Amino acid sequence: MALSVREIGEQGLLQRLFAFCPPQMVGDDAAILTIAPSHSLVVTTDVLVDGVHFSDRTTPPESVGWRSAAANLSDLAAMGAIPLGITVGLALPGEVPVVWVERLYRGLTQCLQCYHAVIVGGDVVRSPVITVAITALGQVTPDRVLRRSTAQPGDAIVVTGYHGASRAGLELLLHPKWGKALPADDRRWLIQAHQRPRPRLDVLPLLEDLRLSQVEWLSHRSIAAMDSSDGLADAVGQICRASGVGAQLQRSQLPIPPVLQQWLTPQQAVDWALYGGEDFELVLCLPAIAATSLVNQLGAGAACIGSITADPTVWLMEQDHPVGQLTLEQGFQHFSDG
Amino acid sequence: MALSVREIGEQGLLQRLFAFCPPQMVGDDAAILTIAPSHSLVVTTDVLVDGVHFSDRTTPPESVGWRSAAANLSDLAAMGAIPLGITVGLALPGEVPVVWVERLYRGLTQCLQCYHAVIVGGDVVRSPVITVAITALGQVTPDRVLRRSTAQPGDAIVVTGYHGASRAGLELLLHPKWGKALPADDRRWLIQAHQRPRPRLDVLPLLEDLRLSQVEWLSHRSIAAMDSSDGLADAVGQICRASGVGAQLQRSQLPIPPVLQQWLTPQQAVDWALYGGEDFELVLCLPAIAATSLVNQLGAGAACIGSITADPTVWLMEQDHPVGQLTLEQGFQHFSDG
Repeated sequence: MALSVREIGEQGLLQRLFAFCPPQMVGDDAAILTIAPSHSLVVTTDVLVDGVHFSDRTTPPESVGWRSAAANLSDLAAMGAIPLGITVGLALPGEVPVVWVERLYRGLTQCLQCYHAVIVGGDVVRSPVITVAITALGQVTPDRVLRRSTAQPGDAIVVTGYHGASRAGLELLLHPKWGKALPADDRRWLIQAHQRPRPRLDVLPLLEDLRLSQVEWLSHRSIAAMDSSDGLADAVGQICRASGVGAQLQRSQLPIPPVLQQWLTPQQAVDWALYGGEDFELVLCLPAIAATSLVNQLGAGAACIGSITADPTVWLMEQDHPVGQLTLEQGFQHFSDG
Repeated sequence: MALSVREIGEQGLLQRLFAFCPPQMVGDDAAILTIAPSHSLVVTTDVLVDGVHFSDRTTPPESVGWRSAAANLSDLAAMGAIPLGITVGLALPGEVPVVWVERLYRGLTQCLQCYHAVIVGGDVVRSPVITVAITALGQVTPDRVLRRSTAQPGDAIVVTGYHGASRAGLELLLHPKWGKALPADDRRWLIQAHQRPRPRLDVLPLLEDLRLSQVEWLSHRSIAAMDSSDGLADAVGQICRASGVGAQLQRSQLPIPPVLQQWLTPQQAVDWALYGGEDFELVLCLPAIAATSLVNQLGAGAACIGSITADPTVWLMEQDHPVGQLTLEQGFQHFSDG
């Protein structure tokens, strides 16, 4: 029997497929194409499959649309790019109600409108399973590109907002009884975090202001960035691997929403913040003085959670004591109780 | 019961979804985004589903890849755009052999390499059915864009190569016995036409030469164009509808491959040429003097098949006698035997 995709996994398959792409096109949240000397095009693609990435049980079609658009715009934000628009490739069975499709597109355009982006084209075809393929296009001036690979020892690690809220919202949708002790406002906020995440494109002008106000250090180097769609721990780990550095994260500084600190055990709150995923915030690495100024402007949840080290290990710290060590495959290992 | 997608069809659904797109983004082979004053970006998306758009019975994975790339590059050619690259969104079941995916990507890159294009990114996800979503990106200077909507009465209608060959190749793959009387070279050529179609990007420099050599007429107007992926009759009909004009096509001038003229009845040869589809040639409308010059440079199969009229009907003619009238939904009606 030939080796199957299941045996090597999606990541294993991606590694093999990289051989078919130019090396500079892989390894970041999106690919960059130089169109003109002062214009780089940023391109990113996501495919969502019914029953795998969304389900009518937890996600009305407007939310499938919103989340699909938000995930792609978040990849653009992580590259420092302003959105231009998206294409939508839609495959679906004939029995799908037209109104379901219109609600999907309403969600897509509602999210896009918030960021002055539009649907620029697409395709609709027949298929046994609903599949939504989105390609987002953005633009950036070449010296403003954010990459994973430019973190430097001594940099502060900034996260732009709370983590774990999307995961908590999903749990509330799957197990409504579970959260019945929570105040209605908190419940709504967590579900909103899951169904209507906000890509952090608002961070880009703040970075531009920082560059203008602190020319002396930022003219010499790039800011490293990645979005936290696959979890905060994964984002830190990916940045460190791409940059050839390590990190020390302070457990007490993790951006855990207050409602989760009350609702969950400390251990579970930390786990959801580190591994929950789909919060679509940004993780940024930049000099400490700029980090403080940035955190002050970002508002609720934003925090400086640690610093980049030359030693390529990623440690979770309780003050000066390491309490866990990150592997990209399994999260933090030897993780003592909090 | 809510109205289903099946009840209104893919075209009916697309019409409804246009309401979610800016009006200038719909109605051509691809959408155009202005990036900088002298750079327009052209974007087109196709989704292919296993069992709907391809099948292991007729199409080895290399050919699925080649055809997917070719279809998208053909849309770029129809807009006058030079390819930059494509993104590939791939959804597939775990039991698919890794080698199948690698062969798909080999076909994609083999086609792309012929046109100096690359894979610039993508996504791989789990799904019950193999789905390949491709978005192609190209660039064009704004005054070189080809559109469907700029055909003018008096224009000659040029097709860039033979039509019906892809359909014939598909029939040979489905019914190998059927073509056993054909010479092996002809059989190979027809199957190649189906499995390895060549997008006509080679036409763009010829148009540029025409513009340079015949400045007096082309500086005043655009060339109208569409690719013939959905059939020659459909391309002529779409151009006429978008331009608010009609056409007279000469049946004797249809670019039918000689092998089909020998193999099929005259009626069937005409039908495959008009409706077969997937030949990925271009249909161009331009002044007669330029058309003649272009046809001479295009080589085998290229022909001037008729002319654009102010009367918005599309007629198929036998010399001066109309023998059929085109509707976009049903092809030529009242079509007498040839």
